[in-house]
Amino acid sequence: MALIVHKYGGTSMGSIERIRNVAKRVAKWHDAGYQIVVVPSAMSGETNRIIGLAKEISEHPDPRELDVIAATGEQVSVGLLAIALHAIGKQAVSYAGWQVAIKTDGSHTKARINSIDDIKVKRDLEIGKIVIITGFQGVNEHGDITTLGRGGSDTSAVAVAAALNAQECLIFTDVDGVYTTDPRVVSEARRLNTVTFEEMLEMASLGSKVLQIRSVEFAGNYRMPTRVLSSLTDPLIPLKIEANSGTLISFEEDTHMEQANITGIAFSRDEAKITVFGVPDRPGIAYQILGPVADANIEVDMIIQNQSVEGKTDFTFTVSRHDYTKAMQVLANGVQQHIMTTDIIGNAKVSKVSVIGVGMRSHVGIASQMFRTLSEEGINIQMISTSEIKISVLIDEKYMELAVRALHKAFDMESPA
Amino acid sequence: MALIVHKYGGTSMGSIERIRNVAKRVAKWHDAGYQIVVVPSAMSGETNRIIGLAKEISEHPDPRELDVIAATGEQVSVGLLAIALHAIGKQAVSYAGWQVAIKTDGSHTKARINSIDDIKVKRDLEIGKIVIITGFQGVNEHGDITTLGRGGSDTSAVAVAAALNAQECLIFTDVDGVYTTDPRVVSEARRLNTVTFEEMLEMASLGSKVLQIRSVEFAGNYRMPTRVLSSLTDPLIPLKIEANSGTLISFEEDTHMEQANITGIAFSRDEAKITVFGVPDRPGIAYQILGPVADANIEVDMIIQNQSVEGKTDFTFTVSRHDYTKAMQVLANGVQQHIMTTDIIGNAKVSKVSVIGVGMRSHVGIASQMFRTLSEEGINIQMISTSEIKISVLIDEKYMELAVRALHKAFDMESPA
Repeated sequence: MALIVHKYGGTSMGSIERIRNVAKRVAKWHDAGYQIVVVPSAMSGETNRIIGLAKEISEHPDPRELDVIAATGEQVSVGLLAIALHAIGKQAVSYAGWQVAIKTDGSHTKARINSIDDIKVKRDLEIGKIVIITGFQGVNEHGDITTLGRGGSDTSAVAVAAALNAQECLIFTDVDGVYTTDPRVVSEARRLNTVTFEEMLEMASLGSKVLQIRSVEFAGNYRMPTRVLSSLTDPLIPLKIEANSGTLISFEEDTHMEQANITGIAFSRDEAKITVFGVPDRPGIAYQILGPVADANIEVDMIIQNQSVEGKTDFTFTVSRHDYTKAMQVLANGVQQHIMTTDIIGNAKVSKVSVIGVGMRSHVGIASQMFRTLSEEGINIQMISTSEIKISVLIDEKYMELAVRALHKAFDMESPA
Repeated sequence: MALIVHKYGGTSMGSIERIRNVAKRVAKWHDAGYQIVVVPSAMSGETNRIIGLAKEISEHPDPRELDVIAATGEQVSVGLLAIALHAIGKQAVSYAGWQVAIKTDGSHTKARINSIDDIKVKRDLEIGKIVIITGFQGVNEHGDITTLGRGGSDTSAVAVAAALNAQECLIFTDVDGVYTTDPRVVSEARRLNTVTFEEMLEMASLGSKVLQIRSVEFAGNYRMPTRVLSSLTDPLIPLKIEANSGTLISFEEDTHMEQANITGIAFSRDEAKITVFGVPDRPGIAYQILGPVADANIEVDMIIQNQSVEGKTDFTFTVSRHDYTKAMQVLANGVQQHIMTTDIIGNAKVSKVSVIGVGMRSHVGIASQMFRTLSEEGINIQMISTSEIKISVLIDEKYMELAVRALHKAFDMESPA
């Protein structure tokens, strides 16, 4: 009998009525002959509420104790879901992370899963029970409760699915899949039936917040087919690629490559750019500029250093707009005098637009097509950065929507692949 | 270094401000040189709230899953208290019941503690940490979470104190000790400095709801000195019997016996009496009457069967007033015809008053003093029941306060012993 893992987010678990609906869906899959493991999140708002209590007491609460507190939200969820399943005549049993031994490393509030002991779960599944396991948490080698960080229930679900050799991991969420780009910006955006693991990684890291990035890494490492689909609609069982069945993160790159060059267009509106002019072109200069920035806990994204002219060069990097003022201060306080720059200029009104697709590996001309499209719209490109399956450009923020729409059209993304 | 266990109820843990106060008190004891283990309840209202969610889904939720849910309230509490102790510079660590292996039997929602593994706790205490352990819960042999029933945190605290060989278990609560009787009825009621374990058992079972009765049993079985004291006042350290230090449940009966014949007067207003007249005096008749009552989940308290006259007898028993109508229905539907009684008469306006004291073992005349006092006040006694350290009478409810006050005075309970 095939095993399927279902993951439901906090919104799906957000009220008694919604928990009943989750139970109905799970029961329907069970009736269809599948073994089912469910990984639910805490009821929406609950984890924030209890962490808020801890923060009222202390600005920097001990991470170990924060995990003890934060883990309770999911524990309530699994119990309620089990009771909801019993109420419609299903056998179901819940487990906290420590009970099925989801072993993690020791880093509280952002632990990583090392192993899962599947004995209890398999025994329950074999006698027809639906098994419900708390998302977001595990237990470290000392027997302390750990949590996996925000969105960690996605990671739990994929890890459980991998440990149990599930056929597929279904992530039920409030969107019905992964889109070519944000439908709020481009109304013609199209749901992708499949996306490769690497593309999904790029989409996630570029701000398409459908899945937690570590769950995508996990899916990749264990080659676990993982599908994002809506908890509002009712998919056909068994799932069919063509049907209203969300987006499957696949590991069969070849078939996919034939279909399209570009899979999606991601963007990040709130970027800021900082240029340090006339710095001496000598070893260690990048570290002298970016070291203090990193020390201030500011993440740097794109970095460009131009060819030097007469032993001087210009050094440009981007940070999240949120960190812009802080980054400028760090540079002004110390770095500027130290490296004898002529000037530091910042611009907090820039955005990043990226085209993503494993297809671009084997297709020349993606970059030039992208640049031509932007040029035709009169959009100036301020920075460029590339990877094997992604090209990102930094542009004036006022052109961001225009750029996304123009690229979506230029790469023929409206029509189904 | 002496070890003391502190237990705080839901009201004491009811807000961030109150949790901070608990932390301050715990820190003060720690500063005074004690090793401290704290057993807090869930924040007041929290357990009801989450059990309420479960009952919204199902009228009779699975007890195993109910325990999974209900146990989370204390888990939040221990984490918050640890963080509050860190905030005032104390080292503290929290454990859920399963982490220090509070092993219980398998009966969900009313489990009994079998053993506690003290290794982790002792190691922490030795390096100067304050240890905080969830009340109310443990783990059974299958690794499932169990809870101990309402008020179970008292039992947890006493059990932890016994397992660790603590010097004393302090139960901080919203009253400042055990009184000779309810101060709302007799304004001269006096706080007892000490009460024996057996007296406390009688007081608890008769409705003085200061301590959960099973925690008193535990204290008795393990001879663990347990003290009830107020979480609102600040006792001197070390505690002295004479000071404002609550009531110590003691195991040194002898000294106590010299002091007073009667320790306390307990009462229960909401009783009901049912008499079955003219039943045949033959073996099995009590079971034929009370069997169906017990099957309807009605608890019977006092039972009297008079001497039979001409093969017929009258059979009287009391139930909680809450169960009166149901009990009368059970008797009418079946029992009445079956046992061929002449009549069944009930009275739901009766109350029970009891005098309690280990002293009465060695002092004759307590009963006659009690009956004379009631007679002098013109109060008719409807039923009498006695144990070695208790005499209970059933009277018309309208005389209850009068009886309690008269007995309190007659036994000289106003003056400190």
